[in-house]
Amino acid sequence: MPQLSLGARVRKSPFFDRAVGAGAASFTVYNHMYMPTGYGDPLGEYWRLIEGVSMWDVGCERQVEISGPDADKLVRYLTPRDLGKIQPGQGRYVPICNAAGTLINDPVLLPLEDGRYWFSIADSDMLLWAQGIALAGGYDVSVSEPEVSPLAIQGPKAMEVAEALFGGWVRELKYFAFRETQLEGIPLVVARSGWSKQGGVELYLCDGAKGGSLWDLVAEAGKPFDIAPGCPNGIERIESGLISLGTDTDETANPFEMGLGKYVSLDREDDFAGKVALGEVANQGVRRRFVGFHISGERLQSGSQHRWKLLHKNKCVGFISAAAFSPRVKSGAGGNIGVGLVEAELAEEGQRLFTESEAGTREVTVTALPFDLSGRIERS
Amino acid sequence: MPQLSLGARVRKSPFFDRAVGAGAASFTVYNHMYMPTGYGDPLGEYWRLIEGVSMWDVGCERQVEISGPDADKLVRYLTPRDLGKIQPGQGRYVPICNAAGTLINDPVLLPLEDGRYWFSIADSDMLLWAQGIALAGGYDVSVSEPEVSPLAIQGPKAMEVAEALFGGWVRELKYFAFRETQLEGIPLVVARSGWSKQGGVELYLCDGAKGGSLWDLVAEAGKPFDIAPGCPNGIERIESGLISLGTDTDETANPFEMGLGKYVSLDREDDFAGKVALGEVANQGVRRRFVGFHISGERLQSGSQHRWKLLHKNKCVGFISAAAFSPRVKSGAGGNIGVGLVEAELAEEGQRLFTESEAGTREVTVTALPFDLSGRIERS
Repeated sequence: MPQLSLGARVRKSPFFDRAVGAGAASFTVYNHMYMPTGYGDPLGEYWRLIEGVSMWDVGCERQVEISGPDADKLVRYLTPRDLGKIQPGQGRYVPICNAAGTLINDPVLLPLEDGRYWFSIADSDMLLWAQGIALAGGYDVSVSEPEVSPLAIQGPKAMEVAEALFGGWVRELKYFAFRETQLEGIPLVVARSGWSKQGGVELYLCDGAKGGSLWDLVAEAGKPFDIAPGCPNGIERIESGLISLGTDTDETANPFEMGLGKYVSLDREDDFAGKVALGEVANQGVRRRFVGFHISGERLQSGSQHRWKLLHKNKCVGFISAAAFSPRVKSGAGGNIGVGLVEAELAEEGQRLFTESEAGTREVTVTALPFDLSGRIERS
Repeated sequence: MPQLSLGARVRKSPFFDRAVGAGAASFTVYNHMYMPTGYGDPLGEYWRLIEGVSMWDVGCERQVEISGPDADKLVRYLTPRDLGKIQPGQGRYVPICNAAGTLINDPVLLPLEDGRYWFSIADSDMLLWAQGIALAGGYDVSVSEPEVSPLAIQGPKAMEVAEALFGGWVRELKYFAFRETQLEGIPLVVARSGWSKQGGVELYLCDGAKGGSLWDLVAEAGKPFDIAPGCPNGIERIESGLISLGTDTDETANPFEMGLGKYVSLDREDDFAGKVALGEVANQGVRRRFVGFHISGERLQSGSQHRWKLLHKNKCVGFISAAAFSPRVKSGAGGNIGVGLVEAELAEEGQRLFTESEAGTREVTVTALPFDLSGRIERS
């Protein structure tokens, strides 16, 4: 791996120093902020997420705050999802599309109160998109990025840690529900969410000066459960079929292709960004589909470093956007798995293709997402 | 330095493999793309830029292309600069502000032909800003990011390399002027520009598959001039007072504060993004100014890793956004220099302040930009 140079252009999260102190060995940049990607033990970090509990510096999940008299109107315009009755305290996953219907972010919307919302965003400047629409559309709103940085607690034991920190009410939160609270004087929003399918919470830190204190409180409360620092996990997210914006999506990917059609309400009476283009996609049918792949050959020693072309009859028919070895997925081909976009007519379960991996050409087989984990194999 | 993990979310430029092959040791992420930041010899790379010629993978300087019937109207709306008569082939530096008057990008505008423009952007998704304005403002335009990636040739011998590649006409280009051309079948835009004050050109590669070929042609033509790979240089840019968006600017920095007031034409009759807010700033006067600093104490061993607070009478009065040791700047305090934003009343030449550097508290003295290089000292 190359080295990552540090400078002020890329921001440090409030948890950065603690993460480095805890041994964060590698980083990426996400929303103009450093995000830890590993603490030196990839399989150990994977199993801790699958079987125990892990704490993540995901301060780079930035918030776009929209407030003011027209906030409700703008929020509804920004997503193809029909929000219906909005209940403060109940978040939702909301695709965001541009005029061409291309997915440009896939945040969680947190309605804080009437007229004030956060979009907790993936890696693109949705702030500028929302500000541009607000300005040119004449919306009476304020659109800003508050100093709010999430710390995630994920894994099957995450809710035990959360209960130790906050008490029993936290277990009552439905998925994507949240509550504003304090922890030893630290202002937080606690949400039942996180970028894994292993369960847990995200603590939205609302005072950037208190990142170290929050980190320490979580580490202490998690000790009985053997908590340790980890990161959004490249293996688990492939197994679970979670979308990584910018990895899995390209400059034309739309929600229908990505399997998010249920969040596009073309029958809404009000207008929304991308409505016309998405209507055309719905009429014509999708060209590509986001699916899983079993990948043949030797066990992959690390995650893929770039997209791998998919080939069928010597023609490029799509790409694998991420691939890794999964210790849990059993398949004829071993545990190498991936996700990606492939031409719709080649997206059926069992379809065989080839891919140009970093380790040479390999045969792949299309499968549905999430991956079947019923044939769980031994830890290795 | 920590390690940088690689994955498909962050893009590789067409020159990535060549840069790695040439020894690129560290990278940052810029516009969702890896950018080399060093080849292992910081001072050697600095002196090659100052005295010779250097070639840079700056493929991360992405283009926002605006075309269509309303392209001219939208381009003018996007910048506070009065573009007057636009001449295809003559680029301009154009600040971009949001409705609050905050600087959100500072690209070079390249008018390719009537009704087709590129903004060659700094590190923010100006694509989404322009698309948002276009959609909500009802502009009849297409706004996209073409697959165009610049390779820079910079330094006092850069024009000799450029002439060897393209012939004598390239020397006739005025600053920011450009021409579409081909080099051994590789489609290019050649512009007299680059993120240094040492002169040179940028070759906008218009066929992403030909990055390796272009790299090799430049390396070969540059051999007689001892060309070698380098990067946008943190020392030289501080000496020259070049703005680094996101490093030097924060969530409220406006063009007046950054010394870009001459690019804000409040007397324009047509509207532009940020006009009202910038008018208020002009009326009230700026709160802060972007200036240089001489920094006392031991020679800085590396560039600053984050912003350093500026203190005056124990009060925070601004920040140094980047600091480094300059071998060319002579000052009472040695060659440590920096740039940053400080409260306007403390921005006068000679003002003394303190800063909390990574190496402890240091005294600093305000100076004008660019730095005075007349007392050039020996190479060390």
